[in-house]
Amino acid sequence: MTLFTGLSAFPLTPIDDEGQLKSELLQRFLERIVAAGADSIGLLGSTGGYAYLTPEERKRTLRAAVDCVAGRTPLVVGVGALTTDVAEDLARDARKAGADGLLLAPMSYQPLTDDEVFRHFEAVAAAGELPLCIYNNPGTTKFTFSPDLIARLAEISNVAAVKMPLPADSDYAGEMRSLRAVTPDGFAVGYSGDWGAKDALLAGGACWYSVVAGLLPEPALALTRASQAGNAAEAERIDHAFAPLWALFREFGSFRVMFTIAEILGLGRITPPRPILPLEPASRERVEVALRPLLQDAV
Amino acid sequence: MTLFTGLSAFPLTPIDDEGQLKSELLQRFLERIVAAGADSIGLLGSTGGYAYLTPEERKRTLRAAVDCVAGRTPLVVGVGALTTDVAEDLARDARKAGADGLLLAPMSYQPLTDDEVFRHFEAVAAAGELPLCIYNNPGTTKFTFSPDLIARLAEISNVAAVKMPLPADSDYAGEMRSLRAVTPDGFAVGYSGDWGAKDALLAGGACWYSVVAGLLPEPALALTRASQAGNAAEAERIDHAFAPLWALFREFGSFRVMFTIAEILGLGRITPPRPILPLEPASRERVEVALRPLLQDAV
Repeated sequence: MTLFTGLSAFPLTPIDDEGQLKSELLQRFLERIVAAGADSIGLLGSTGGYAYLTPEERKRTLRAAVDCVAGRTPLVVGVGALTTDVAEDLARDARKAGADGLLLAPMSYQPLTDDEVFRHFEAVAAAGELPLCIYNNPGTTKFTFSPDLIARLAEISNVAAVKMPLPADSDYAGEMRSLRAVTPDGFAVGYSGDWGAKDALLAGGACWYSVVAGLLPEPALALTRASQAGNAAEAERIDHAFAPLWALFREFGSFRVMFTIAEILGLGRITPPRPILPLEPASRERVEVALRPLLQDAV
Repeated sequence: MTLFTGLSAFPLTPIDDEGQLKSELLQRFLERIVAAGADSIGLLGSTGGYAYLTPEERKRTLRAAVDCVAGRTPLVVGVGALTTDVAEDLARDARKAGADGLLLAPMSYQPLTDDEVFRHFEAVAAAGELPLCIYNNPGTTKFTFSPDLIARLAEISNVAAVKMPLPADSDYAGEMRSLRAVTPDGFAVGYSGDWGAKDALLAGGACWYSVVAGLLPEPALALTRASQAGNAAEAERIDHAFAPLWALFREFGSFRVMFTIAEILGLGRITPPRPILPLEPASRERVEVALRPLLQDAV
């Protein structure tokens, strides 16, 4: 198993009202992920709110995570930033701090050209020297990677994987065939978008970059293992238990729902960074109902 | 004339290779704008690269600008940020430093809801206490304001104006009628997108939020005054001189082209913040050609 395979669990980054990292709560999230046996941790991904934190807060968060999980579960860390200078600095710091790999999303303000994204990735990959996953997340970055650009990037020696959004036509197998045809052997094509994870993994996707596994690693791992084993019936059964939650993820955005899940699970009261608002009480009740099938032994 | 009317000129923020503000060069840009007689300066807008600078760099830039233009030309400053906390801090600082008004764009990573944008604007307007212009720039923020949301925001006492993108159907008059119907008297509806400025002003737009006026304030002011006076023939003549440059703005993005214009005018060699790349030499030659009609006395 290489770094970018299996279940990668994306924890929230808990920040208190004064803007300080709640490191004990972060470590509590991480312990649950390690205990469940997830294949990696996707620290400071979109779910980890990396875009809303200063570089200093991000470095502190990484150190708290390394202190907790080093040697137990591989740690992949998001180093995306609006400027190449900041992303390079974060990538160098990640290596120094002991991360195992990097996630890089092309955050943008002015829309970027393919050449700009290529040069950005080349620079950050060189600065970080760690295995790097292309974080293809048009819903947040507003940049869409063409297969050609992924192929160009995959030639950079430490660019090892891509995290794809769910394909509009749900043709995972076709998309993976196309990408594998233009990328080196061993380049790992994985997926995010939790409601498509079952189909992505059953179709041979290398990795599920999972939001929900940041807080519910056990049922997420059960879904991952059933899908990886090709046990479609069992995967369908578990995915069915997740379905009400997937519906809420799509309605409210998974980022907002995750803060509510943390509270319902009794892990801690944390709020999203403004301008993102927490769910209203009525929606919170719907999350409670959606969680029930997942908190029973059945999954 | 209120703050958000006439020609608002948006200068670049010149940063050296070590990431430091070149304050003398910024002041040179500002002196040109003041000398031309522009109605306001739009500091740290999209053209000023606010999204790529730290809050500290932005505060330093504002102080250098106030030192230069205070009491001569009204200074409006962009305080957009990915978090409400940072935008509030910048808004408070802007007032303290002596800015005359605020521009606020809803920068986003996770796509924002209307309620989130409303609460964000409400908080930042309260923190800054200065007249505030809603910076409606879907091309960079990926957020589109509905007329309803603009109407809700216009009820906040110091929300005084909106900067609209060019309407897809070019029906400026229709759009302004709709917006005026739902906003208080005196609420100023202006436009950005330099190639539509003539039509927007001829149709009664309150303000041209102008990229090109950051470096070529004289012909931009001539276009503004002719359009404001309803002199369509003269406005057409000047707009025609700008046309080759508008074509390059659309092809490359005005942000990239502006750095090349600064160099061609002999004002200084500055480069955009990576990942944004400067224009290639062949494109630079095209900018030189496009500038010729604008650097003659005829305009």
